[in-house]
Amino acid sequence: MARDKVCVVIGAGDATGGAIARRFAREGYTAVATRRSADKLKHLVAEITREGGKVHPFGSDARDEEQVVKLFREIETEIGDIEVFAFNIGGNVRFDIRDTTARVYRKVWEMTAFAGFLTAREAAKAMVPRGRGTMLFTGATASLRGGRGFSAFAGGRHAVRALAQSMARELGPQNIHVAHVVIDGAIDTEWIKSNFPERYNAGPDAVLNPDDIADVYWQIHQQKRSAWTFEMDLRPWKETW
Amino acid sequence: MARDKVCVVIGAGDATGGAIARRFAREGYTAVATRRSADKLKHLVAEITREGGKVHPFGSDARDEEQVVKLFREIETEIGDIEVFAFNIGGNVRFDIRDTTARVYRKVWEMTAFAGFLTAREAAKAMVPRGRGTMLFTGATASLRGGRGFSAFAGGRHAVRALAQSMARELGPQNIHVAHVVIDGAIDTEWIKSNFPERYNAGPDAVLNPDDIADVYWQIHQQKRSAWTFEMDLRPWKETW
Amino acid sequence: MARDKVCVVIGAGDATGGAIARRFAREGYTAVATRRSADKLKHLVAEITREGGKVHPFGSDARDEEQVVKLFREIETEIGDIEVFAFNIGGNVRFDIRDTTARVYRKVWEMTAFAGFLTAREAAKAMVPRGRGTMLFTGATASLRGGRGFSAFAGGRHAVRALAQSMARELGPQNIHVAHVVIDGAIDTEWIKSNFPERYNAGPDAVLNPDDIADVYWQIHQQKRSAWTFEMDLRPWKETW
Amino acid sequence: MARDKVCVVIGAGDATGGAIARRFAREGYTAVATRRSADKLKHLVAEITREGGKVHPFGSDARDEEQVVKLFREIETEIGDIEVFAFNIGGNVRFDIRDTTARVYRKVWEMTAFAGFLTAREAAKAMVPRGRGTMLFTGATASLRGGRGFSAFAGGRHAVRALAQSMARELGPQNIHVAHVVIDGAIDTEWIKSNFPERYNAGPDAVLNPDDIADVYWQIHQQKRSAWTFEMDLRPWKETW
Repeated sequence: MARDKVCVVIGAGDATGGAIARRFAREGYTAVATRRSADKLKHLVAEITREGGKVHPFGSDARDEEQVVKLFREIETEIGDIEVFAFNIGGNVRFDIRDTTARVYRKVWEMTAFAGFLTAREAAKAMVPRGRGTMLFTGATASLRGGRGFSAFAGGRHAVRALAQSMARELGPQNIHVAHVVIDGAIDTEWIKSNFPERYNAGPDAVLNPDDIADVYWQIHQQKRSAWTFEMDLRPWKETW
Repeated sequence: MARDKVCVVIGAGDATGGAIARRFAREGYTAVATRRSADKLKHLVAEITREGGKVHPFGSDARDEEQVVKLFREIETEIGDIEVFAFNIGGNVRFDIRDTTARVYRKVWEMTAFAGFLTAREAAKAMVPRGRGTMLFTGATASLRGGRGFSAFAGGRHAVRALAQSMARELGPQNIHVAHVVIDGAIDTEWIKSNFPERYNAGPDAVLNPDDIADVYWQIHQQKRSAWTFEMDLRPWKETW
Repeated sequence: MARDKVCVVIGAGDATGGAIARRFAREGYTAVATRRSADKLKHLVAEITREGGKVHPFGSDARDEEQVVKLFREIETEIGDIEVFAFNIGGNVRFDIRDTTARVYRKVWEMTAFAGFLTAREAAKAMVPRGRGTMLFTGATASLRGGRGFSAFAGGRHAVRALAQSMARELGPQNIHVAHVVIDGAIDTEWIKSNFPERYNAGPDAVLNPDDIADVYWQIHQQKRSAWTFEMDLRPWKETW
Repeated sequence: MARDKVCVVIGAGDATGGAIARRFAREGYTAVATRRSADKLKHLVAEITREGGKVHPFGSDARDEEQVVKLFREIETEIGDIEVFAFNIGGNVRFDIRDTTARVYRKVWEMTAFAGFLTAREAAKAMVPRGRGTMLFTGATASLRGGRGFSAFAGGRHAVRALAQSMARELGPQNIHVAHVVIDGAIDTEWIKSNFPERYNAGPDAVLNPDDIADVYWQIHQQKRSAWTFEMDLRPWKETW
């Protein structure tokens, strides 16, 4: 009997991560949606289910190696084959260098680079023996450049990019497609709406729509292996860059 | 009566350019295929026609302002609205610096940067008043880095990238999607087959399939404007980079 | 009475770090040389002293916030004004992704990004109130690109670069010159000599001489503030890149 | 009898180019200063002579192959050995894409990329047989990124960078040091003073001082070949980037 094809989204928040889970569920994938608190996944589970999709919510801390190993083992044992992995944890904080505590610097690294490493490594362990899979990393402007106040955030994001690029170079020839998507603009979230109302209301499509981002993740997964993308940027049409 | 939607491909050679024309014709666009000699377009025209698509071949020298202006006027007047523009002229030559003649250096610039500028500018003149359109530039490894023997080729390709980026920043807010695709590997052509047989025969999908590249151009055109890509790379899964 | 001008080198190993300490001592700076074990600094201290320079060795763990805070307080209280800060800890390890343990990934981050953050932050606390200073970060090829086996190493080095760039953008306008030097080649060390004899013996100046690197650090420190460098690369003349 | 060591500056204008000529003359090099009109070099010649330096002015069009070949032959025959070559022609124009004429696009390329190619090639022909030399290219922000209105300017500057990088990779192993300096800010010139008074008067060292830039060119020339820089950026301390 054919096993389910799984798309696991680490950091299935209300915006991009959730949209990715919905998108792949709509295409017949069994979505595995994780975030720290399973409670916060209820709305997403309801949405996907209502659309006729399959979804498994997991409360799991991506910074905890034991939980991560257990999560991936459980998915592979009880749900299906991990065909798609999406890492989507943010980490945006802003402090001038002298105000950045060791605690903040470490926390941001743990939720970005370290969580990315742990979960991507476990995904690779599932994919490599099967010789196929797609790994998608969500990046940000800070993946490519530092900025005042961004020593912690840009540090974490740069490290995720280095991880993705190192994995792409190693795993590409093993038929695993690794890609890094640089989101260079504000995403349509409650937080942006409240904190940057001018930007949010700058006209139609002035902020990134999570569903439009998810479409691109699906496109990348559809690419034939003679022509794979490692990196691409995404920004709203009106964005200044 | 609705006007035809046109996809114009400058440099519709036997590989990538031809594939782009076929792809968009398959989606209902009227393809306009240009290269220096119209004779060499016969095969492509036959293919597209056999598939039920619409295509207009033009012998036109993209380095000649008068011919370019005439070409775009003719398309807009007699064929339809230019919705998609793809610039796909190569320019790959390799000479050590002291062996590079002024003639070669100038010719390569003319067929890459200057032809790109002339045709893209005319396409912009058609698109901007309508407030919509997609402009796709084919790049290469040499778009991002020079190399021994590549002063002319990398010079031309870097300039095309600068053109695309400048146009993206100017025209994005006018609802024109400008993208630059960095092809980082060998494309499946007769020339590669004859000259790099080891590379060509390195296994399945070891070189870029023009149809797979064309799929990606179609994907870019499909992107919603809240999440537009300016730049992405494409390479075969086994490529070392 | 004039206070001593201090150049503190974090990671004053036998190669680059030691050479930087010697170079600045030769120019009249009081060198503060740190590494985990003070014992290993004896040779460097003897060298600088013999040349008539001033040097203070410290055994200090740059990954330990308490030790770092104490180190910088002690320098400023008992030795002089920190005018130059150089961060020079490596972190080069190579493991395929599935063989990279969480311990290794974390350790490499701690000795690169976290140690860089802790020490640079304390240096900034000393420099900003005085409104002057130079901060120099040693980078590597892996600061700019990942590679097979480099998820941990490139992650750490990318994060150091993000730190340096973020600090440069914040502290430049406060008259603190922050620079990042990308060492893109093998450095003349015992380790390279033993492990890459072919490379080491590829002819004169085929590997980077630590004294030549130190000259460049001195040049950067000499730059006038109307024309400051943030980033530069360094590689041997014969290096392929 | 020892031949004079020559530093030839192509585009020895009133700012950076002139400062480079002065700086190398002060170090004992015979400066060869070129620009289109020899008349405009009188002031520079007087300055260098007054300081006790040696200088030869040439009115020469760097876009004209015949003139360029003649210039370099004359220098080598009648003046001395070209040890240092600096290419310093600007090309800054700004036009929206639809307003950029073919004439402007071509002219900007001719004075940047084509002139850079012709002069650098002739310099290489002089240097390679001797197995030594330094080639310095002045770049700009537009060498690395396009921008609205910069299709011509960024195109030319990108191509110069591609030329420099290609030559560095080819000529480095022949003991020719090729470097590209990205000037990322406004330079202290009459033009900036008149047109951007706010920027010019933003406080001490708010714009790049040509003499400070020239110091850096001298530093690059001083680098030992075990540790050569290909690329570095320069900007004023207060610059936002």
